[in-house]
Formats: sequence, structure tokens, C-alpha cells
Amino acid sequence: MQGQSQQQAYDRGITIFSPDGRLYQVEYAREAVKRGTASVGVRTPDGVVLAANRQVSSPLMERSSVEKLHKADDHVGVASAGHVADARQLVDLARRRAQGEQLRYGQQIDVETLTRSITDHIQEYTQTGGARPFGVALLVGGVDDGEPRLFETDPSGTDYEWQAAAIGSNRDAIQGYLEAEYRADLDVDAGIELALRALSEPEDETVEAESVDVATITNDDQGYRSVPAEDLESIVAEIDAGGDDD
Amino acid sequence: MQGQSQQQAYDRGITIFSPDGRLYQVEYAREAVKRGTASVGVRTPDGVVLAANRQVSSPLMERSSVEKLHKADDHVGVASAGHVADARQLVDLARRRAQGEQLRYGQQIDVETLTRSITDHIQEYTQTGGARPFGVALLVGGVDDGEPRLFETDPSGTDYEWQAAAIGSNRDAIQGYLEAEYRADLDVDAGIELALRALSEPEDETVEAESVDVATITNDDQGYRSVPAEDLESIVAEIDAGGDDD
Amino acid sequence: MQGQSQQQAYDRGITIFSPDGRLYQVEYAREAVKRGTASVGVRTPDGVVLAANRQVSSPLMERSSVEKLHKADDHVGVASAGHVADARQLVDLARRRAQGEQLRYGQQIDVETLTRSITDHIQEYTQTGGARPFGVALLVGGVDDGEPRLFETDPSGTDYEWQAAAIGSNRDAIQGYLEAEYRADLDVDAGIELALRALSEPEDETVEAESVDVATITNDDQGYRSVPAEDLESIVAEIDAGGDDD
Amino acid sequence: MQGQSQQQAYDRGITIFSPDGRLYQVEYAREAVKRGTASVGVRTPDGVVLAANRQVSSPLMERSSVEKLHKADDHVGVASAGHVADARQLVDLARRRAQGEQLRYGQQIDVETLTRSITDHIQEYTQTGGARPFGVALLVGGVDDGEPRLFETDPSGTDYEWQAAAIGSNRDAIQGYLEAEYRADLDVDAGIELALRALSEPEDETVEAESVDVATITNDDQGYRSVPAEDLESIVAEIDAGGDDD
Amino acid sequence: MQGQSQQQAYDRGITIFSPDGRLYQVEYAREAVKRGTASVGVRTPDGVVLAANRQVSSPLMERSSVEKLHKADDHVGVASAGHVADARQLVDLARRRAQGEQLRYGQQIDVETLTRSITDHIQEYTQTGGARPFGVALLVGGVDDGEPRLFETDPSGTDYEWQAAAIGSNRDAIQGYLEAEYRADLDVDAGIELALRALSEPEDETVEAESVDVATITNDDQGYRSVPAEDLESIVAEIDAGGDDD
Amino acid sequence: MQGQSQQQAYDRGITIFSPDGRLYQVEYAREAVKRGTASVGVRTPDGVVLAANRQVSSPLMERSSVEKLHKADDHVGVASAGHVADARQLVDLARRRAQGEQLRYGQQIDVETLTRSITDHIQEYTQTGGARPFGVALLVGGVDDGEPRLFETDPSGTDYEWQAAAIGSNRDAIQGYLEAEYRADLDVDAGIELALRALSEPEDETVEAESVDVATITNDDQGYRSVPAEDLESIVAEIDAGGDDD
Amino acid sequence: MQGQSQQQAYDRGITIFSPDGRLYQVEYAREAVKRGTASVGVRTPDGVVLAANRQVSSPLMERSSVEKLHKADDHVGVASAGHVADARQLVDLARRRAQGEQLRYGQQIDVETLTRSITDHIQEYTQTGGARPFGVALLVGGVDDGEPRLFETDPSGTDYEWQAAAIGSNRDAIQGYLEAEYRADLDVDAGIELALRALSEPEDETVEAESVDVATITNDDQGYRSVPAEDLESIVAEIDAGGDDD
Repeated sequence: MQGQSQQQAYDRGITIFSPDGRLYQVEYAREAVKRGTASVGVRTPDGVVLAANRQVSSPLMERSSVEKLHKADDHVGVASAGHVADARQLVDLARRRAQGEQLRYGQQIDVETLTRSITDHIQEYTQTGGARPFGVALLVGGVDDGEPRLFETDPSGTDYEWQAAAIGSNRDAIQGYLEAEYRADLDVDAGIELALRALSEPEDETVEAESVDVATITNDDQGYRSVPAEDLESIVAEIDAGGDDD
Repeated sequence: MQGQSQQQAYDRGITIFSPDGRLYQVEYAREAVKRGTASVGVRTPDGVVLAANRQVSSPLMERSSVEKLHKADDHVGVASAGHVADARQLVDLARRRAQGEQLRYGQQIDVETLTRSITDHIQEYTQTGGARPFGVALLVGGVDDGEPRLFETDPSGTDYEWQAAAIGSNRDAIQGYLEAEYRADLDVDAGIELALRALSEPEDETVEAESVDVATITNDDQGYRSVPAEDLESIVAEIDAGGDDD
Repeated sequence: MQGQSQQQAYDRGITIFSPDGRLYQVEYAREAVKRGTASVGVRTPDGVVLAANRQVSSPLMERSSVEKLHKADDHVGVASAGHVADARQLVDLARRRAQGEQLRYGQQIDVETLTRSITDHIQEYTQTGGARPFGVALLVGGVDDGEPRLFETDPSGTDYEWQAAAIGSNRDAIQGYLEAEYRADLDVDAGIELALRALSEPEDETVEAESVDVATITNDDQGYRSVPAEDLESIVAEIDAGGDDD
Repeated sequence: MQGQSQQQAYDRGITIFSPDGRLYQVEYAREAVKRGTASVGVRTPDGVVLAANRQVSSPLMERSSVEKLHKADDHVGVASAGHVADARQLVDLARRRAQGEQLRYGQQIDVETLTRSITDHIQEYTQTGGARPFGVALLVGGVDDGEPRLFETDPSGTDYEWQAAAIGSNRDAIQGYLEAEYRADLDVDAGIELALRALSEPEDETVEAESVDVATITNDDQGYRSVPAEDLESIVAEIDAGGDDD
Repeated sequence: MQGQSQQQAYDRGITIFSPDGRLYQVEYAREAVKRGTASVGVRTPDGVVLAANRQVSSPLMERSSVEKLHKADDHVGVASAGHVADARQLVDLARRRAQGEQLRYGQQIDVETLTRSITDHIQEYTQTGGARPFGVALLVGGVDDGEPRLFETDPSGTDYEWQAAAIGSNRDAIQGYLEAEYRADLDVDAGIELALRALSEPEDETVEAESVDVATITNDDQGYRSVPAEDLESIVAEIDAGGDDD
Repeated sequence: MQGQSQQQAYDRGITIFSPDGRLYQVEYAREAVKRGTASVGVRTPDGVVLAANRQVSSPLMERSSVEKLHKADDHVGVASAGHVADARQLVDLARRRAQGEQLRYGQQIDVETLTRSITDHIQEYTQTGGARPFGVALLVGGVDDGEPRLFETDPSGTDYEWQAAAIGSNRDAIQGYLEAEYRADLDVDAGIELALRALSEPEDETVEAESVDVATITNDDQGYRSVPAEDLESIVAEIDAGGDDD
Repeated sequence: MQGQSQQQAYDRGITIFSPDGRLYQVEYAREAVKRGTASVGVRTPDGVVLAANRQVSSPLMERSSVEKLHKADDHVGVASAGHVADARQLVDLARRRAQGEQLRYGQQIDVETLTRSITDHIQEYTQTGGARPFGVALLVGGVDDGEPRLFETDPSGTDYEWQAAAIGSNRDAIQGYLEAEYRADLDVDAGIELALRALSEPEDETVEAESVDVATITNDDQGYRSVPAEDLESIVAEIDAGGDDD
């Protein structure tokens, strides 16, 4: 109970340090991330795969409006987990930043630079008063001069680069699956398959094409491409045929 | 009781995260939505139907002043549920935004773009201090180049696209009715009928023309059109004649 | 007692939502309205009648200084109930707004538009921090191109249009009387009589000309007109002669 | 005791409504007025009399420095009760406002207009945060085109017009005396006598010329005039000679 | 104990009214004045005498640096009691104000006007939030066109004019001595003697020249003059020779 | 328990002093530093060595993204321990500051000057309200005109110059090892070896090349140089061959 | 315990008065000064000596970086005790202020004027909200036109002038030693000796040259001069030879 009342002392007003050097508001924002449905990113030599579970609360809801994957620029995609409205703010920031680079310098923004401008923005909300942290984690995938990159941003404003990463609910189980199954030489289709299997891992269910959203950012001319539902279905069919041990 | 006092800790001052990653002020604002009378939106191939219950507290009150449906632009209508004065602020924002688009670019604003500018505004009030969230949900219905669209905004600043949706009191029961009865190929008149039946669902009462307000936004020249009382009455008469199983 | 301490949690600092979606500061401001002496508005085909009880705490106080009725423009009057100094701020706002319209566009402001500019101002004080809501309700009566209009504003920033309405102490009893006795085809004099009877209703006392203030806003050339004491006295005499059943 | 703790909840930070619709900080400011020595205003057909008790805490203090009566303009005087430094701010505001009118329009400011500019300023301090209300009441007496006017301002920012009024400690007893003894046709000298008797009422003591301060604002050329000590003494002598029943 | 906790409720954040109409932060600032060593002012027909006890905490401290008397202008001096750093701010304000008058109008500022500009500044710190009151009282002594004036400022922002006044620790005893011994026709030297006796009163000790600081502001050409240590010693010698009854 | 509740009193809102003159928020920020993995700096006559442990939480995480060593300018490197996102803000500040110097004056910024601009920024966040301190310590190593310098910054905004220093978890043990083994005449390679041994000290494990990051800032043309993984491996191999007593 | 909880009430948010007229945050800042190692200033006819103990927490720390003595201008030095980062802010302020005087008027700033600009800055942080006081005391020593001056600043913003003064830990014992041993006719070397003896007083240890830092500001051409380590050693040798009674 003391732990309870001690925590309460640190979450009011602004984001401040607890006696053991933690920022509770940031940690609570991480809980908001865990409450969101999972997203997965997989980096392959030919591009980055982003995939996300979509929870559609009613058959009358348009699936496309439960947006978990976002095109930030021709060569960059973003997956999110956590507070949806917060995610949209950060995605909009990324888009404006990418457009600004295009306008000012006539070139595509570097994926790492773009990620940093997002995490700088996130960090600011953890230090200066009068605002709460962003309750969202992002996976930022893109291609720089033919080289695929995959970054994660967390609510503290830290970024990490990954070969394959998961964010959101059941993150640990999904990440464990990725660690067991990821191979650096996957082609993009295999990356999609890995991502879909990983997302279905927690429940060990068969993958259902309609409850996932997949995009690829490849180092050919296509750049960001949302994988169409029909393609997804044939991929899923193959997966389900091949079974878990494929 | 502990739950009680814990909640109190998170709803003061600004909107901050609780230890389990929730934003209580936003959740309380959702309660304000539930306290409002219900509104319904139905998308048909020819346009969007918006309908709302109106609670008139005295026979001397002008029914028109209990405004639940609003014309935001020639091609966009908004229904609301929750805190009435908050709703008016968002409707005014939508109108200014639509007019601005008209003035700057000489064209009608995209329904999705308009919805986003509303939810961006809502989200801002959930993150920066010194203000409470908006205690209102909206249904934004409109037509883009002949294509009907129907969006919902919630107090967190999230938007969803729907085929048919309900907001406000008894939302779950009404949404359940919509899910059971909605067909994608309804014509506008059938959409009106569905909306009226849905609104009367919770009490299973016969629909009364005078306690509802209906508007349609169609992909013909009419655009936003408030359905006149006399039309409503004949529709209602038909419904009541046809019974529940029609 | 828990209800007590729970309420206290929601009324400090800024206006925020309670767990059940209510804004306590706004509800407390409504209590401030109930503490004020009553005002009544009656709409007739020829104009609007505003009437108010005046509590003069000493025979040495000038009755005219207990202002409950205010001329906002040639064609608009305002009655108030609640915190007197707050009412004056809103009346001044209404006057500036009406004058601005006159200066900018050379025309009288629409009564509904004027009311909205007041309720927008009121709503702002319920959402952004650092200020309390306005503790006052207004009746805004006026004539637009020959058409009488009567609006009410409440502390949440909502407005309603009425045929006849009461605000302030004993509001429910007075409104009940209006609902029972109002007829849409009253002439202005009958409207005055109805208003005076309604104001005397709670105590079922005879009306006293000196404790009421009456103004009319008519669709002839007169516009806003404060009814002189001598006229009031003869009207009251008639009422008292006619008895309650007239 | 609960009443105690409940009150404490409403007087911190900013001025907010209590559950029963009261503004405690404003009510506490009224207590500050009651803690001040009394002032009295009497309106006569020929001008306004202002009179005030002066508490001089030491024989070495200059009586003139315990200022309770202030000349705001040639034709306006102000008496105060309550927090002395607050009163000076409002008197300075009145002077600047009167000078501004003189400079801009070349004419004396209307007494009612001047009073309103003071009460508007007071009201602002009761609604917007970060400041306490003014702990002072004023009597504003003056002459407009030959017509004497007497207004009171209170800490809520309300103004009242009076024939004769008292503010400050023992206000109720003094006001009662004024109500019993005031006649509308008093000449200025009789007004002074009434004011002095009223001030001495609570203790039923004989009036002492040295413990009161008197000013008149008359509709002749004199305007604001501080009544000299020697005049006061002869008036007081007359009063004391005539006894209480004069 | 309740009194204790009630007081605590009113001294946080900003200066607000207690239920009985008091401003605790201002009253606590008065306690800060009482914690300071005493200062005395004596007005004579030929000028004003300011005198102050100086507590030098170490023989190595320069006596001149324990500044209790300050020259504000050629014709104005200031003595202080209370929070030393606060006093310096107000003295600096007085100097800037006096210089400004000299620069703008080419004349010496009126002593009363100067005092008012100080008390206006002090009052502001008692009403608007985000700052504490000034914990200091001042004696402002000066000469206007040959007329000596002596004012006191207190932490509420009130000013009083005195013939002779004391501020700081043991104020009541010193003021009592002044009331008993002051005569309006004292010459300046007798005024110095009176001031020194008064300062030594509380302990009934003999006056020690080295523990006091004396300045005179006279209506001859000298204006503000700090009385040199040697002069003080001979005066003190005379006093001590003459005994208490001189 | 009292100590507990006393501490809670000092860590809310802004950084304020405790009764014993401590700034708890700063001390808690020091705890955040201790939660970070360790970094070490070693100054040699030929340059500065920076080394850091890297905790990579998953084999799929890119080691390079767990950035603990940063190039601030050609001649300056920064190692960090503590809150990662805070560190990035300070490193960015350092970079901007170094570039500004280059742009304005065409020369490399002095290492001490650069450090001071960082600690000034840190100090500001410990004194003015509305923000928390930075939860990070830095080692700033560089070369000024051929002279190697090594500074530490702490969360209070203090800087220290070192021959060899450790920050982060197990700081005391690592610093003890450095104190025992440091010699001022080490060459850079020996400095690297010392740094690696020190980092492995707490657990007394053999050094693993893949869990450390090393950079050198030397007074030859190379300036800042990140030591490549292959070089690190051969160095580590030598260390492990030579044993602890080498 | 009550004293405990009472104190807590006054140290939050901003610096406000306690019921007994004290500013706890300022008093706590004085505790921060006492936590700092001691500094001593000695004024001699030929100049001022500043000396400070230096606590170097590790043999690897550069002694020069534990800066306790600072050159503010060619003719002014500053010693500090307390919060190190706060001291640096004030020293920087002093330097900017001295440079400004040089730039604007082409002359050296007066030592007293410089001290005042520091204490004005300190005072401001004790009165206006949103910031804590400075947790540092300074000794400001310098020479004005050949005249040595020595000032102390404290956390309240008060300054004192001294012949010889100590600040920081064990201040009372050191000051006692200075009071016993100081003579006004010391030459600078004797002043250094006195300062060193005083600093070693608390522990009655022999002085160690390496744990002290000494600077002189003399009225010859040298101005501010940091006494070199070798000079210090020979002085200390002499002291230790001469014993305590020299």
C-alpha cells in the first residue's frame, strides 16, 4: 500500500524523478503502449516489412479506419501501438518533417534523422511541465539509398535500431518468436510470413488475413506499399497450409 | 474504496497517465458522451443519413434549439452526443475549416481531412495542460466526389470510419441493432427508416416523429438536407404500420 | 460523506470531468443561478416580454440600481438571474458585439447570432483553466425582421430557444405555471400579465408593481422599451382585480 | 467542523464556486470590509455627503493620513471601508479614468459610468485566476449635470445606487439608523448631521469632531469639498447641544 | 491546533482571504518586520530625524554595511526594519522614482508622492499571485518646500503620516516612549536625542553611539545628512550625562 | 517512514531545498544515472579514451543503436550514463554549440567552454520551475591545442575535470579500480586496456569485445575515432591472455 | 513533529512567509551553504586574500576543477561555499556585469556596485515564484582605486562588508578564529597565513598546501592573482614551522 501511495506522489503535475531515479509518467505511458494491439517490423536485405493486428470492434466499422500502419514518405512507413490519437500526432510530425526535407533540400530524409526528430519531440514532453508523455511506441521502417532500416521509438524518447521488433500487447512473446525464427537473409515475402506468424504467436492461432494489416518498404522503385487484402489472403493460405513448422 | 481514491489522483490538474496506462479524464469525458441523447449515422450508396433523438425538457422549448444535427458544409453534416456547448465549438471549428478550404483552394474539403482537423484539435486538449478534454462524440457524414463517408470522433481524438454507427446514451443496444439490420445496399429512405428504428430500439417504443431529427447528405445536387417534419411523420407512419419485422 | 469528499475533488483548480462525466464547477454555477431572483421571458406574435423580480434590500436603495433587465441593442433585451457582476460582463459583451455588427455591416445583429457569441464566451470559461464559469443565466429576447425570438443561455454555454421561459429561484414552479397558461397568440399586454402572474406564482401572492421590472421588445418602431412604473401599476391593478382565474 | 473543512476547499488558488453556488473568496473579502471602520453616504437634493470614522492608532499619527475619503474628480468623491491599500488602487483607477474622460472628450465623466469602470475591474479579480478579490467596499458620490448620485461597490463587483448608505463595521446598525431618519428633502447641512449621527449610532456616543472625516460634493461651483475641522466642530457642537432627538 | 491548521490553509500559493477577511501572508510579513531591529523617525519643525539600531554580528563586520538608513534623494531618507534584501529593493525603487522625476520634470519629487509609489508597488505584491509580500516596513522622511514630512509604509501597502514613529522589534514600547516624550517644537538636536532615547528604551540601557545610525533631513541646504560617529558620541555623552529624566 | 513522507514533500512541482539544504530532485536524478550502464574515461598524454558497456536487450537489436559514445565535434567525444533520451538532448546541445563556434569564429570550441555550456543548461533545469533535472551524467573528452582534457558533468550542473573517471552503475567499484591502476604516462592503447578492465571490474569477468564500445580522441590528425570491433577484439584477446596482472 | 509538519507547509511551490515571519526556503538554502566546504576572506591594507578548502573526492580528479575561487574581473575575485552549480551562475553574472561596465563606460566596476547587482539577482529568486533561492554564499573581494573591499552575499540577497569573513562548513569556528587573530595592519602575506590557519582551525590540523586554494587581489598592478602551489607550500612550511602561536 505504501508503494501505492508513493507512486501517486510522482505522477501528478509534471514528470519528475522518483527517489529511485525513475520517471513514473513515462513508465505509465509504456503501459498505454502495452494496452495497444501489437505491431511487428522485420528488416530484410530487400526492404522492411511492417505488420499490425487490427482490432475492429464492430462489423460495421471500416477496417481501413483502424489505422496501425502509416506511410510517412515514399520511402518510410510507420507502425504504432498504444494511444491512437497520440500516434497520429507523431505520424503527422514525421510527414511534415519529411516534406520539409524534400522542400528545402530536394531529397528524401534519412530514416534515422527522421526517427530522431520524432524522439526529440517525445523527449521534450517528458521533461518540460504542463503536458503528459506520448502514450505510444512506433516502428519506423524505411530505405536509405537502398539500405533498409528499422527503428523503434518509445515513450521516453529513446530510439533503437532493430533487425526485427515487436511493440504493443504481448510484446515479449512476439519478440521471443522473432528472436527464435528471424534470419538475416529472409526475402521480403518470407519477412511478411515471419511477421504474420509472430503476430499470431501469443494465441497460437492460425493467421487470419482480415485481422492484420501489412506494408512493405522496399529498395526497388515501389518504396512504401500497402499489401492488398487479396495478396494477404494467399500468403496466409500458404502459411496455414505449411503449418507452424514450415 | 482504494480504487476510488486512486482514480481521484489522476483526474486533477492535467490529463496524465494512470499506473495502468489510462487517461482518466478522457474516460470521464466518454461518460459525458454517454449522458447525452443518442445519435445515429447510416451510410448508403447514395448518401449518409444522420438521425438524433431530441430531449425537449418543456413544451415551451423550441424543438429546433435542441440542436443535435448541424450542417458543416454543403456536403457535410455533423451529429453530436454529449456536452452540448463543447459540440458547438467543434462544429464551429469544422465550419471554419471547410470555409477556409473553399476560400484558399476553391474546393470542398475532403470529409476525412475535415474529420482529422477536428480530432487533431480534440487530441491537443488531452495532452497539453490547463484544459479539460472535449466531452462530446461526433458523427461526421458527407460525400466526397460522389462517395458517401461516415466518421466518428471520440474524446481521445481518435476517428473511426463506419458503415453505420451510434453515439450517446444506449449506444451499445443501438449499435447492436444496426449490426443486425444494416445492409450495404440500403437506399436513403431505407437508411432513414433503419436510423429511426435503431434510435427507438432501447425502449422498443414506436418511433415518434417529433422526438427525432433527421438529415441526409446525398451524392446528388442536394447535399446536406434537413428532413422536414412532415416527411418524417409520413416515414414514421409507414414504419409503425409495417411493424418491427418489416 | 463520500459523495461530499468526492465532489470536493472535482471543483478545484480548473473545470474537469468527474468519473460520471459531469462538470461540477458548471453545476455549482447553476446553483448560483438558482440563488438569484427569478426572471421570465414570454414570446408573443408582436414581441417579447421580459420581466424580473427585484429584491431591494433597503428602502433607501434605488430600485433602478438592482438591474435585472438590460437593453443590449435597440431590438434586443436581456434578463438575468444569478451572480449580478457576472451578468453585467455578459451584457457588456452583448452590447459591444451588437455595436460591432452595426459598425462593420451597418445592420442590426441577428438575435440568435448574438446569443451564440455570448454562449461561445461562456463555454470558453468552462474548458480552459485559470477561470471559473459564469454564475449566471440570461434570457435574450429580441426581434429579427419582425420575428420575435427568445433565447436562454446557461452556465455551460448552451443556448435554448423558448416560447416562454423562467430562470433563477423557483424556476421549476414558474416554468410550470408558464407551461399551463402560455398561449401562442397572446398579445403583448397579455404577455406582460402572464409574466407577472408567473413571477408571483411561487408564493401565490398578489403581484406588487414595485417589486417587478418589465420590458418589451416589440416588432414595431419602439423596439426595446422599459415599461414605466405607472403602466405597471395599472396592469397590476387589473390583474389583482381579475384574480387568479382571469 | 465539516463546514469548516468544506469552506477550506473553496478558498485556495482561484475563486471558484462552492457546491451551493457561492464564491467564498468574495464572501471572505466582504468580511475584510466589515473589519474596516464605517463610512456613510447621504444624498440630498443639493449634493452628496460622505462621512467616515477614522481610527487613529496613536496621537502621533497624522489624522490626514488615515484617508477614508478621496477626491476622485472635481465632481466625484469616494469613501471606503476595508483593506486600505486595496481602496487606494481603486481610487487611483477612478482618478485615471476620470482624467482620461477629461482628456479624450473634454468633459466630466458620468458618475455611474465611473462606478461601472470600477466594478468591472473588481469583477475581473473574482473570475480570472492568480489574484484575490479586492477586500474593500466604496461609496462613490458625485453630481451629474446638477443631479446628485450615490453608488456603492462591493467585492463581487456589483454596484447599487442609494439615497443613503453605510459600509464597513456595524453597517447594519448604521444603515438601520439611516432608514429610520433619512428624508429625501434634507439640505446638505442636515445631511452632514444625519451622517455624523449615523456614524455614532452603534455606540450611541456623542459625535466627536476629531474622529470623523466629512466631504460634500455639491451641485454648485464647489464640487468636491472636504469639510474643515473647525466647521465640523461647530456642527458637532450643535448636534450634541440638540441631543439625539433633534 | 485547529487554528494552526486553518492558518496553514491560507498561506500557500498566493495571498488570499481567510474566512474572517484577513490576508495571512501580509500578517506574516508583519512578523518579519518585528524580527528586524528597530528604526525610529522624529519630525521637527526644522527637519526629520531617522535613527536605527544596528546589530553587528561580528567585530570584523563593517558597521556601514548593516545599512538601515538610506538616502533616497537629496531631500529624502529611508529607514527600514525587517527583511534586509526586500528593503533594498524598495529603496532602489524609491531612488529610481526620484531620479525619474528629476529627469522628466527637473524637480524634486514630493515625499508623499514618492511614498505612494512605494506602497503601490508593495500592494501589487499582496494581490496578484506568484509572489510573496515584501517583509519590510519603511520610514520615509523628507522635506517638501521647507516642510518636513514623515511617512511609514507597511507590508500591506498602506502608508501613514507621523510626527514620530517606530518600526521593527519592540515597536510598541518605543512608540509608547515617543508618545510620552514627543513635543512638536523640538529642534533637530532634541529630535536626535529623543530618537536615541526611544531606541534604547526597551532595555532601558544607556545609549551606545556605536550601535546606532542617525541621519537628518533638514529644510536648510544640507538636506539628507548622515550624522557622523563623532557627533553621535558627543550627543550620546550628553544624554548619558543628563540621565533619563533630562 | 517519516523520512519517506518528508522526502515526498520535496520532490513535487519544482526543485526546492529540503530543510537540510538538499535538492531531492537532483539527488533522484543521480539515482537515474546509477541505473544506467557504466561509462569510463581515461586521459593519456596522447589523447582521451572513452569506453562504455552496452546492454543490448535482444539479439535482434542493432548494437550501434544503443548509443553510449557520441562524437560532439572532430576533437570532442561524449560518453553518457543514465536516461538515454536526456543524454541525446545534451549531446545535441554540445554539437550545436561546437558548430556555432566553428561558424562564428572559424575555430574549434575549447573543451572546457563546451562543457560549461552543457552544465549551465543542466543547472537551469534545477532552479527554474516547470521542468525536471536531466537524469544523466556525461564524460566529455577532447583535445585542446594538443592537450587532452576529460570532464564529467552531473545532474546538478557541476563539472569536474579528471585524469580517469567512471559514471553509471557500479561507479564506485570502477572508480576504485581506476584509482588503483591509472598511471599518468599510459599510451592510448594502454588507456583502452585500462578502460576495458575497469568496466569489467564489478563482475571480475573477462572482457567481451561485443559488449563494449570504445572511442579515442587523440591529439594527432585523427581526432575522434570510434575503435572498430575487430581492433577491440584483438585488444580484448591480449587482455584476456595477459590476465588481470598484466 | 508539529514543527516538522509546519515547516513542510512553507517550503512548497514558492518562497512564502511562515507565521513567525521567516522564509523557510531561504533558511534551507543557508543549510546548503553550510554543506559546502569553507572559504575565507581577509582584507589587508594592500589587498584582499581569498582562501578556500577544496575537497577532492578522488586522487584522479583534477584539483583545479574543484573551483572555489574565481576571477570576476582584473580587480575582483569571488570565493564561494554551497551549491557549486549555483555559484557558477552568480560568478558568470558578475563577469558579464563587470565586462558590461568596461564596455559601456570604459572603467572597472565598483566592487560594491558589482556585489549589489549579484544580491539583487539573488533577492529576486526569493520573492517571485517558480524558482528556488540560490544555495550559495559568496565572498567578493576587490580593490577600488587602491582601496581593498571585502563583501559577503547570502541566500536572502543581503550583502555585508567585512574585514575578514568565513562562509561554508564550520563557519562559526573559523569566524571565531578570525575575530581572535585578525589585525587591521596585516600585510598580504600575513593575511594569507591568517586565512590558512583559520581554514585549518576546525580540526586544528596542520595546514596542507594541496587542500587549499588561495588568491589575492592587491592594489598594485597585479590585481587578481591565484597563488601558485609552490608559493603555497613554502608559506605552509613556514606556518607549520612557526607553530600555532607565531
